[in-house]
Amino acid sequence: MRDGSGTASRGPRGRLITFEGGEGAGKSTQLSLLAKALKKRGVDVVETREPGGSPGAEAIRALLLDPENKGWPAMTEALLHFAARCDHMSRVVEPALASGKWVLCDRFTDSTMAYQGVAQGLGSSVIEQLSALTLKGRKPDLTIVLDLDPEIGLKRISERGDAPTRYDLMDIAFHRRLREAFLMIVRSDPGRCVVVDATYSEDFVAEMVSGAVTSRLEMDLAS
Amino acid sequence: MRDGSGTASRGPRGRLITFEGGEGAGKSTQLSLLAKALKKRGVDVVETREPGGSPGAEAIRALLLDPENKGWPAMTEALLHFAARCDHMSRVVEPALASGKWVLCDRFTDSTMAYQGVAQGLGSSVIEQLSALTLKGRKPDLTIVLDLDPEIGLKRISERGDAPTRYDLMDIAFHRRLREAFLMIVRSDPGRCVVVDATYSEDFVAEMVSGAVTSRLEMDLAS
Ligand SMILES: Nc1ncnc2c1ncn2[C@@H]1O[C@H](COP(=O)(O)OP(=O)(O)OP(=O)(O)O)[C@@H](O)[C@H]1O
Ligand SMILES: Nc1ncnc2c1ncn2[C@@H]1O[C@H](COP(=O)(O)OP(=O)(O)OP(=O)(O)O)[C@@H](O)[C@H]1O
Ligand SMILES: [Mg+2]
Ligand SMILES: [Mg+2]
Repeated sequence: MRDGSGTASRGPRGRLITFEGGEGAGKSTQLSLLAKALKKRGVDVVETREPGGSPGAEAIRALLLDPENKGWPAMTEALLHFAARCDHMSRVVEPALASGKWVLCDRFTDSTMAYQGVAQGLGSSVIEQLSALTLKGRKPDLTIVLDLDPEIGLKRISERGDAPTRYDLMDIAFHRRLREAFLMIVRSDPGRCVVVDATYSEDFVAEMVSGAVTSRLEMDLAS
Repeated sequence: MRDGSGTASRGPRGRLITFEGGEGAGKSTQLSLLAKALKKRGVDVVETREPGGSPGAEAIRALLLDPENKGWPAMTEALLHFAARCDHMSRVVEPALASGKWVLCDRFTDSTMAYQGVAQGLGSSVIEQLSALTLKGRKPDLTIVLDLDPEIGLKRISERGDAPTRYDLMDIAFHRRLREAFLMIVRSDPGRCVVVDATYSEDFVAEMVSGAVTSRLEMDLAS
C-alpha cells in the first residue's frame, strides 16, 4: 500500500496500520495510544474499526451482530465482512491514505482469517481468495498482533464491565484456536506483521508498538 | 445439482429451476404459473426468490434496497448478494432439494452476473470466481431466461402500479446492457439455460416454459 513517491499533487501516501488479536488483548487501547503519539508528531491520523468504519459498513456490522441472525453460515459471515470492508476501504481508508493521512484500524482482514477462516473452519484458502478478489492485493503497511492468553483477555473484558458479545461467550477452545490463527498469520507474513506480547502493562505494550512503528515505517516515535 | 440416484433413504433429489431476465419480463408471473402446473402433477414445490428467501437473506435484501445505501460500491453489492445466497441455499434450497422438492427461484446468480458483473461493470470473471468459491459449483438444473425489450418490460411495471425500484429508474442503456448480459449467459451455458421470448401472452410464454421443463427435466407437463 505504501507509495513513497506520492501521487499527483497530493503529497506522499499515508500508511495503514491495523491492530489484531483476540478479545480483550488491548487492540482499542493501543490504537488510541498510538494515535496520540502520532498526532504529537504532527501526523494526520484517522482512527477507524472493522467491521464498520463507514455508514454502510456499520449497517452491515449491525446485521452481523444482530442476535436474530446469530446462526449465519460461516461463508455468509465472511462475505458480509468483505462486503463491509470494500465499502469502508473505498469510502474512508483509500481517500484518507491518498491525502497522506495515517489510518489506524481496529481489526481488518486478519480477523476474518482468524475467526471465519480458521476458528470457524471455513478454511484459510477461501479467505485468501476472497481477499485477493475483493481488495486487489492491497494490504496494511503494518499489522500489530497483540498476543495474549485468552483467559486473561476474557478476564480483562469482564472487568471492563461491558455486556459480553457473541464471541466472548464461545468456549475457551475457540479462543485458543483464534490465538494460534493470529500467530500463524504473523509467521506467514513477517514483513507486514509484528507480534507484541500483550501481558505487560499498557504503557510497556505501547512502547513496543511504538518501537515497531519506528523500525518498520520510518517514523521516529522512540525519543 | 441433479442426483437421479437419490441420496440415503430420502428418495430422489429435487430440481432447482431459476427464472431470470430484466425488469417486468414476467419472472414472477411465470414462476407462479409453473408452480401451479407442477403441483397439479403432484410435485412438491417450493417458491422462493433472491435476494432473500430466508430470514437472514431477507435482512440482507433490506440492506441492499435501503435507499440510505443507494451508493454501495458494486463489489460490496455483489458480496451482499452472495452472502444472502449462501444463507438462502443452506437454509432453504439445499434442504428442500435433499427432501425431493422442486425449488423455483425468482432470480439467482445470473442476475448478480448481469447486474453487478456486466451492467455495473464489475467484470464477469469476479462473479464467476465468487460463484465458484461460495457455491462450490452448485448450479440450477434449469434456468429460464425471459427475454424482452426493456422498454416493454418497464412499461409493464409502470402499468402494474408498484412504486418504481432503484433499477427501474436506471436509464434505458443500462437495461439494454442487462438484456445483452442475460443473452450472453444463455450462450455460455446452453445446457442449463433456455431463452424464452417474453413478448407473447402470459399463457403462450407459460407453454414455452412448460415445454422447456418437459424436454430438459423429464417431467411431462405437455399433455
Ligand atoms: N496491557 C494491559 N494490561 C491490563 N489491562 C489492559 C491492558 N490493555 C488493556 N487493558 C484493559 O483490558 C480491557 C480490554 O482492553 P481493550 O478494550 O483495549 O481490548 P480489545 O482488544 O480492544 O478488546 P475487544 O476484543 O473487546 O475489542 C480494557 O478494560 C482495558 O482497559
Ligand atoms: N406475457 C405478458 N404479457 C403482458 N403482460 C405481462 C406478461 N407477463 C407478465 N405481465 C405483466 O407485466 C407485469 C410484470 O410482470 P412480472 O411482475 O411477472 O415481471 P417480473 O419479471 O417479475 O418483474 P420484476 O423485475 O419487477 O420482478 C405484471 O403486471 C404482469 O401481470
Ligand atoms: Mg476493542
Ligand atoms: Mg418479479
